[in-house]
Amino acid sequence: MTRMANRKPKHFLWQVEGKVARIRLDRPERKNPLTFDSYAELRDTFRDLVYAEDVDAVVFLPNGGNFCSGGDVHDIIGPLVKMDMKALLAFTRMTGDFVKAMLNCGKPIIAAVDGVAVGAGAIIAMASDIRIATPEAKTAFLFTRVGLAGCDMGACAILPRIIGQGRAAELLYTGRTMSAAEGERWGFYNRLVDAAALEADALDMAARIVSGPTFAHGITKTQLNQEWSMGLDQAIEAEAQAQAICMQTADFERAYEAFVAKGKPVFEGN
Amino acid sequence: MTRMANRKPKHFLWQVEGKVARIRLDRPERKNPLTFDSYAELRDTFRDLVYAEDVDAVVFLPNGGNFCSGGDVHDIIGPLVKMDMKALLAFTRMTGDFVKAMLNCGKPIIAAVDGVAVGAGAIIAMASDIRIATPEAKTAFLFTRVGLAGCDMGACAILPRIIGQGRAAELLYTGRTMSAAEGERWGFYNRLVDAAALEADALDMAARIVSGPTFAHGITKTQLNQEWSMGLDQAIEAEAQAQAICMQTADFERAYEAFVAKGKPVFEGN
Amino acid sequence: MTRMANRKPKHFLWQVEGKVARIRLDRPERKNPLTFDSYAELRDTFRDLVYAEDVDAVVFLPNGGNFCSGGDVHDIIGPLVKMDMKALLAFTRMTGDFVKAMLNCGKPIIAAVDGVAVGAGAIIAMASDIRIATPEAKTAFLFTRVGLAGCDMGACAILPRIIGQGRAAELLYTGRTMSAAEGERWGFYNRLVDAAALEADALDMAARIVSGPTFAHGITKTQLNQEWSMGLDQAIEAEAQAQAICMQTADFERAYEAFVAKGKPVFEGN
Repeated sequence: MTRMANRKPKHFLWQVEGKVARIRLDRPERKNPLTFDSYAELRDTFRDLVYAEDVDAVVFLPNGGNFCSGGDVHDIIGPLVKMDMKALLAFTRMTGDFVKAMLNCGKPIIAAVDGVAVGAGAIIAMASDIRIATPEAKTAFLFTRVGLAGCDMGACAILPRIIGQGRAAELLYTGRTMSAAEGERWGFYNRLVDAAALEADALDMAARIVSGPTFAHGITKTQLNQEWSMGLDQAIEAEAQAQAICMQTADFERAYEAFVAKGKPVFEGN
Repeated sequence: MTRMANRKPKHFLWQVEGKVARIRLDRPERKNPLTFDSYAELRDTFRDLVYAEDVDAVVFLPNGGNFCSGGDVHDIIGPLVKMDMKALLAFTRMTGDFVKAMLNCGKPIIAAVDGVAVGAGAIIAMASDIRIATPEAKTAFLFTRVGLAGCDMGACAILPRIIGQGRAAELLYTGRTMSAAEGERWGFYNRLVDAAALEADALDMAARIVSGPTFAHGITKTQLNQEWSMGLDQAIEAEAQAQAICMQTADFERAYEAFVAKGKPVFEGN
Repeated sequence: MTRMANRKPKHFLWQVEGKVARIRLDRPERKNPLTFDSYAELRDTFRDLVYAEDVDAVVFLPNGGNFCSGGDVHDIIGPLVKMDMKALLAFTRMTGDFVKAMLNCGKPIIAAVDGVAVGAGAIIAMASDIRIATPEAKTAFLFTRVGLAGCDMGACAILPRIIGQGRAAELLYTGRTMSAAEGERWGFYNRLVDAAALEADALDMAARIVSGPTFAHGITKTQLNQEWSMGLDQAIEAEAQAQAICMQTADFERAYEAFVAKGKPVFEGN
């Protein structure tokens, strides 16, 4: 059993309360950019979450009114323009590995977005399972504006499945800002709440999710990823197997017994 | 040639009129739950529909103001919590086979949803081709609330393609009710109509569909499923082949001749 | 290096200005139908665009208030009803090859839709990357109305990814017109603008796109297609490789240097 509550990351804020891990990037004066170090430490943290028994969901929170300004121009883009291909690929694979680790960590992730969420910041929101934002959220997949392609950390695969192929294409070719209202209307944001209520709202949703059958949630997350490119018949068979596993958990029995007793089940994640 | 009009299912209501089969689950006092028997009989019915010459479309209708309350807690969940893995997998495969049979039956399916459509009831709506609902429709993929995962009968594969990955994730992790207005806005429901007009509206759409080229409709349904996980170039080649087949039907010629004669084609499904 | 500015297509209007190619079908008195010849010439043009150095984006424009009325009933459907299977498949493959050529040309394509966009006209819009329309745009995938299946030129694969599986199914089974307002709400149209502003608006978006890093745009387009049916981990690795390529372009360095100098980058597409 891995415990993560007492972990002390060096490059971002980390707090575990009620089985929900809270992450905040921590350079608010620069709108919380990512650095080589924070990418790597985030990747490693999400890889470890697979085995964590004391964390059942993760919430990414803003800091100082902004979510994340993406890869730091001075700390990241400057060095990148001087790198050879081997080093560049090591970098793009590291950032991709961070997203893979988010997708494969087995715990639902909620992004609570306020202010700026651009570049890799927009990607963190995109790679989360659920996204809540304030009306002030400004989200941009702005890679094209730094001379790069829209295909960064999975964006060409994932963004179209969230907001549709046509809207994704426009955002990726132009790098323009998606307003919070657009994001909500298009299904990028699950809902908008005022800035004063954002953190409580996201943490409340996380609390409700971790009060559910967390082993089964892990299977839901696995299947959402696993079935991404399966044929339909194969996906249905995969779900038959995955759900049969869940039907042998005690949580399933707990739910049944609570129903019979006209009560509310208390799930234990096994 | 298989004829299905005179079939007398034991576990649901069945009526064929104008080449449209109407299905109603039939325990309105309990909001029309499914049982082991009705699952199996529905699966077998949709499998037989492949060969039916007297049915060209199917409409699922509500009964007593509700669509379907899903797997019955007493009749299904009670027994499941006592089953061994072999029996559990036989059950989840049976329910999956019902969805596969809906997808592979070769006839467009319309779900007319009023009131409760939860659990497997939400899945029946999801696995239909077109969904019409009343403003009172309450749809929930509530598997998580009975201790299970969201991956039931294809939901992790199909629901994201209908309403987007982010909205689907929220519904599957929380099990919350999707309101009719949300469902319409998100593309789950093709439209909302008042309860008094629901059945006529769904049957009218079915009538219009079966007045079209039904052989070609079967190919449309086949290709919507077949191309689910194909690459784009492969999908386009598959459509070239599939449409070439349709161009050798008499219905294609009927349409052309009607056009030349400035009339309306009468399609015969061959 | 291939130059395309001076090309003189026989079967449609062609103009290159500021690295943006403008295409207009040119039988406005019949709402711009396609013919065997225009299909083939469009296919060949988009195939050549892969190698063009003087075109970085394409805009399809309306002509006489309409976009395109699809395959001409007299010139195309008449001959088709008399063809044998070999000839039919050659035709459906040619139309499919036109869409494949649009998808694989490596340049962003914008459709500016006014009036009628039906049949193959709707497909041209669908196979473009970005779609802008007037409130008068009437779009219909009306293949079913001529006795055919909805699976034409990739529609069963592509349309569901743009507007969602449920809405696509309805349009493909019924052949009904999608209004401009529906199209915008569902993500088919990126936005609506008045007819008087349509061309300027589409050309302005094209100008902004070609002022960006066009080599990287080509990679974005490649990856949007390439990742269509990849698994998530594979898509993320594919993007790591694709973006590493872009990080070795001079455009990436130009963006960095402009940022450091607090200026605006001038991209050169290499």
